[in-house]
Amino acid sequence: MRLQIAIDMVDTAGLMDLTSKVWKIVDIIEVGTPVIMLEGLGAVRKLKQRFPTATILADTKIADGAGLETGYACDAGADIVTVLAVSDDQTVRGCIEEAHHHGRQVLVDLINVSDVIKRAQEIDAMGADYICVHTASDVQSTERNPIADLKKISHVVKNAKIACAGGINETTINTIMENSPEIIIIGSAITNADDPAAAASRYKALMQGTRHV
Amino acid sequence: MRLQIAIDMVDTAGLMDLTSKVWKIVDIIEVGTPVIMLEGLGAVRKLKQRFPTATILADTKIADGAGLETGYACDAGADIVTVLAVSDDQTVRGCIEEAHHHGRQVLVDLINVSDVIKRAQEIDAMGADYICVHTASDVQSTERNPIADLKKISHVVKNAKIACAGGINETTINTIMENSPEIIIIGSAITNADDPAAAASRYKALMQGTRHV
Repeated sequence: MRLQIAIDMVDTAGLMDLTSKVWKIVDIIEVGTPVIMLEGLGAVRKLKQRFPTATILADTKIADGAGLETGYACDAGADIVTVLAVSDDQTVRGCIEEAHHHGRQVLVDLINVSDVIKRAQEIDAMGADYICVHTASDVQSTERNPIADLKKISHVVKNAKIACAGGINETTINTIMENSPEIIIIGSAITNADDPAAAASRYKALMQGTRHV
Repeated sequence: MRLQIAIDMVDTAGLMDLTSKVWKIVDIIEVGTPVIMLEGLGAVRKLKQRFPTATILADTKIADGAGLETGYACDAGADIVTVLAVSDDQTVRGCIEEAHHHGRQVLVDLINVSDVIKRAQEIDAMGADYICVHTASDVQSTERNPIADLKKISHVVKNAKIACAGGINETTINTIMENSPEIIIIGSAITNADDPAAAASRYKALMQGTRHV
């Protein structure tokens, strides 16, 4: 079980600052969609140059132009690139092919997919590295969380590893860990903490506890 | 009927160069998703600074974080921001609210929506400024084009204006014009032409001919 920190609401300087605090604790550094939108993939490039041994996920949320955009992200140094599961199969497949051509990986994001079981099975068959159940930040206020979707797909995905994202915090992490996703993605519960390194360490310790149960 | 040029496969310098050639001919300059991914919204900011009277669409393809990301795009100078119709209603509504708060507009992109009639009606009711039928570039090779979707939604959208995108060229533009979208979006048929200004002028003349029929 790995811990991914999602860093969303910063510029490149803020991304560097937060990463410097947590990169030895967490397993994957996610450069969030808003950061990429604001700063471009240059933010990923600079992060990889400064932290070459860190595993970096670029949350590109690709919806079209799969080969081109995945290539851009890989060239910038992303280890993992994301594509939307609501995209056409050709787009998902195109991202997987291009990333694997570069020796990198793809996380397919189930955000706003209505039939997660069917789509997760389809995407699993396409050769995705990770399939992510994800409650959009825009709907978290309506008491939706990714646990139900995580339970639904846990037993149908055979090859890909499962990731879980969407407002995860100390209230929900135990239930999520019980369903054994490979990656737990935590954003504001770490990035908005007074001491992000301490918060990251707490979540990591919780997850390592589970590993040894 | 307005002509939008989609500029996709360039860096900021290429964006400036292409825009300088066509901005007096076309009605809307689209900063494509790959440009934003590569360069960030700084590309939009620089374009607006250099061409302050041009109407600029930032093809952000927002899928979550509606208020934040729309705010970023508006702050950068985008006149029109895009959101994916496959997103949650809260995301689409959040983009519309934020853009209107800034006095800007939203184009909702129907890319990969299965029931375009139902979704177009829902989005029309949410107050979108533009609804765009759009065949993904990743699937254009499979002989899909936006004409069928354009015909389907033309009579059900009551308030929003309709845009049409997806591999439009000299073979398809006449059929598209017959269905009277407000905006016709053309990418590579202009940007890859030996003389992009001449190509833009040809499409614009075709569209103006229709206007006077």
